[in-house]
Amino acid sequence: MKNAVVLLSGGLDSATCLAVARAEGYRCHAISFDYGQRAHSELQAAKALCDAMQIADFHVVPLALGTLGGSALTDNSLSIPEDGMEDAGIPVTYVPARNTVFLSYALALAEVKDASVIFIGVNALDYSGYPDCRPEFIAAFEKLANLATRAGAEGGVMRIAAPLQEMSKADIIRLGHRLGVDYSLTVSCYQADEQGRACGRCDSCRLRSRGFAEAGIADPTRYQS
Amino acid sequence: MKNAVVLLSGGLDSATCLAVARAEGYRCHAISFDYGQRAHSELQAAKALCDAMQIADFHVVPLALGTLGGSALTDNSLSIPEDGMEDAGIPVTYVPARNTVFLSYALALAEVKDASVIFIGVNALDYSGYPDCRPEFIAAFEKLANLATRAGAEGGVMRIAAPLQEMSKADIIRLGHRLGVDYSLTVSCYQADEQGRACGRCDSCRLRSRGFAEAGIADPTRYQS
Repeated sequence: MKNAVVLLSGGLDSATCLAVARAEGYRCHAISFDYGQRAHSELQAAKALCDAMQIADFHVVPLALGTLGGSALTDNSLSIPEDGMEDAGIPVTYVPARNTVFLSYALALAEVKDASVIFIGVNALDYSGYPDCRPEFIAAFEKLANLATRAGAEGGVMRIAAPLQEMSKADIIRLGHRLGVDYSLTVSCYQADEQGRACGRCDSCRLRSRGFAEAGIADPTRYQS
Repeated sequence: MKNAVVLLSGGLDSATCLAVARAEGYRCHAISFDYGQRAHSELQAAKALCDAMQIADFHVVPLALGTLGGSALTDNSLSIPEDGMEDAGIPVTYVPARNTVFLSYALALAEVKDASVIFIGVNALDYSGYPDCRPEFIAAFEKLANLATRAGAEGGVMRIAAPLQEMSKADIIRLGHRLGVDYSLTVSCYQADEQGRACGRCDSCRLRSRGFAEAGIADPTRYQS
């Protein structure tokens, strides 16, 4: 049985990604990050997803990214936008170098667990404004990973798998539904409450809600009111 | 005044690297990592170097790398080799994906501080066994950095500077000596004691000692006995 490391945020995309990795027959090692994000219930969701999918190896890595500041997701002095999700620029919810840091840790774990693939649930359509979600970025990290590691230096190959890269939100939901993902466990909201209930107003909530509608699948999201 | 982020371990190479960045006229933001390394006195050395070089912005980032295991530097159940420093393989002191993680954090800090360059003191001669010290790795990270960041996405350029890459230990010591580095503050030893005194026996100690001898400069290293 081959090993895979799966980046798991507790959101809809990464939950689907974990289901894909499992369906492909990998022994999955899930990794989440506690980086001072407002929605701490994401981490509880990640744990619940691992329990539900019987993923025995789950790591929560504390990060000090929040202390560097610079993002509305970690800096309470910036407000989260509730309109204009089609804005062409880089959103203020962007966290500096986040996916670079996340993938670096995943790479460290992959070395320790002898994994040959890292799954990441980036999605070009959702996050077109985030530079570190683009296919070019993923390809560059894969190249780096193969230069960075003992396995790479000894002729092994490390693959960065981004199976959702080109899918719509509705396609992702249909795929996860088919693979048995319990989306009621996932948290997408940027400002979910302690119980994991969503605000229903932020960009992430609206994209998610629209995705379920387009997929023709009942939305199990729990809302705050 | 342009900003630079400098990776500072508290060792001889990174201290020299910081001096180079400062001499090139950069406002320096130093970053160190607390990753469960045995030689905790390295961090005290990094702080002392910042004080001596009047670097006002110094970050110590706690990392959870140690909990992943897999290296003699962080795992007390593995012993540090005291002979055979010319071994051609990857040393057991290799920490999984370490420089990838370090550079990722440096990149996050560079974004926050609006820095256009990251200095890293890797050296091809010392660390020929570490895959993540090779010039190809540094070049691949520079490419990644320019794809990963807001600045890169908006047309900026991020440079990874490795000024010591091709230098011998003696050349590094001569350069730092000329730039006024106080090497008595630096700690190179893999198993230094709480006062930062070196064992004199590990690979790192022997490379350092030989470097001072070849440079013809008095060795200010403090030894344990």
